Amino acid sequence: MTLHDLLITKMQSLYDVEHEITKALPKMAKAASDAELKSGFEEHLEQTKGQIERLEKAFELLNEKPKKLKSEAIRGLIADGEWVIKNVEGSEALDANLIAAAQYVEHYEIAGYGSAVEWAREMGHTEVADLLEETLEEEEATDEKLNELATSGVNERANDMDEEDEETKLM
Amino acid sequence: MTLHDLLITKMQSLYDVEHEITKALPKMAKAASDAELKSGFEEHLEQTKGQIERLEKAFELLNEKPKKLKSEAIRGLIADGEWVIKNVEGSEALDANLIAAAQYVEHYEIAGYGSAVEWAREMGHTEVADLLEETLEEEEATDEKLNELATSGVNERANDMDEEDEETKLM
Repeated sequence: MTLHDLLITKMQSLYDVEHEITKALPKMAKAASDAELKSGFEEHLEQTKGQIERLEKAFELLNEKPKKLKSEAIRGLIADGEWVIKNVEGSEALDANLIAAAQYVEHYEIAGYGSAVEWAREMGHTEVADLLEETLEEEEATDEKLNELATSGVNERANDMDEEDEETKLM
Repeated sequence: MTLHDLLITKMQSLYDVEHEITKALPKMAKAASDAELKSGFEEHLEQTKGQIERLEKAFELLNEKPKKLKSEAIRGLIADGEWVIKNVEGSEALDANLIAAAQYVEHYEIAGYGSAVEWAREMGHTEVADLLEETLEEEEATDEKLNELATSGVNERANDMDEEDEETKLM
């Protein structure tokens, strides 16, 4: 298997991953309570559709048909996210955990696109590398935005709620 | 579900994840050709055992028994890594892809420990947060080391091999 094959395999896997994510994001948006988080998931759905198009363009540049290679990992990540939606009670706690679940997915994608960009550049496929890097930067920005949401509000509210629970118990 | 429950749930999931990783690392070390990569996987196995002990200490500090919560995600990530070992031919290409698979796992753990540290600090569990942060830093260092291996050698050799293949075909 050549580095070229590795790149195609990785792109096929990412192509599958992005499609699975477009199915999961509406469920996460529906489950989120915080308005900013909800709209963040909705915006990321639109962004993901653009990322699928970018992958299709990259396949075209490499004279390959877009094809999906089934990723067990994204299915596992999404299954864990669905566990969260079903089992985490309390809207603040659910939001905090939805952010954590989404960050797992972002980090998974960042690793995948990171390898793909590296390999495309190594082979001198500059245009393909640039396309994939655009997506990589979007994923990094999304992760950063999730970080901000986590540290500036959602987690504190989840904690305040704990304290209110404590007070209720003490009364 | 309180933020405390979220932290315990995340730690239980990470406890399962670390145990699955101890089973996968010997297979990755066996499949790797590059000496530095092979010894890197072996060292990370020892490190992972220490990370399990750290989690056990964190559970103890929170008056909880160490328990595993099954992570579908780590099973998916490892299943994809096993696909690589079975399907990627050529030792250089296999090494490049083993690095990519390992980085997926590292990024997954970085996201998980990142949330756990955040939540522990938010609740004022300083000692627990410090323990988990020690592991977080180890995972980040491992990811950095994998990055260095990927950019300084393994990928270039995988590409050189492609070129040699080309030359053979042209002769």
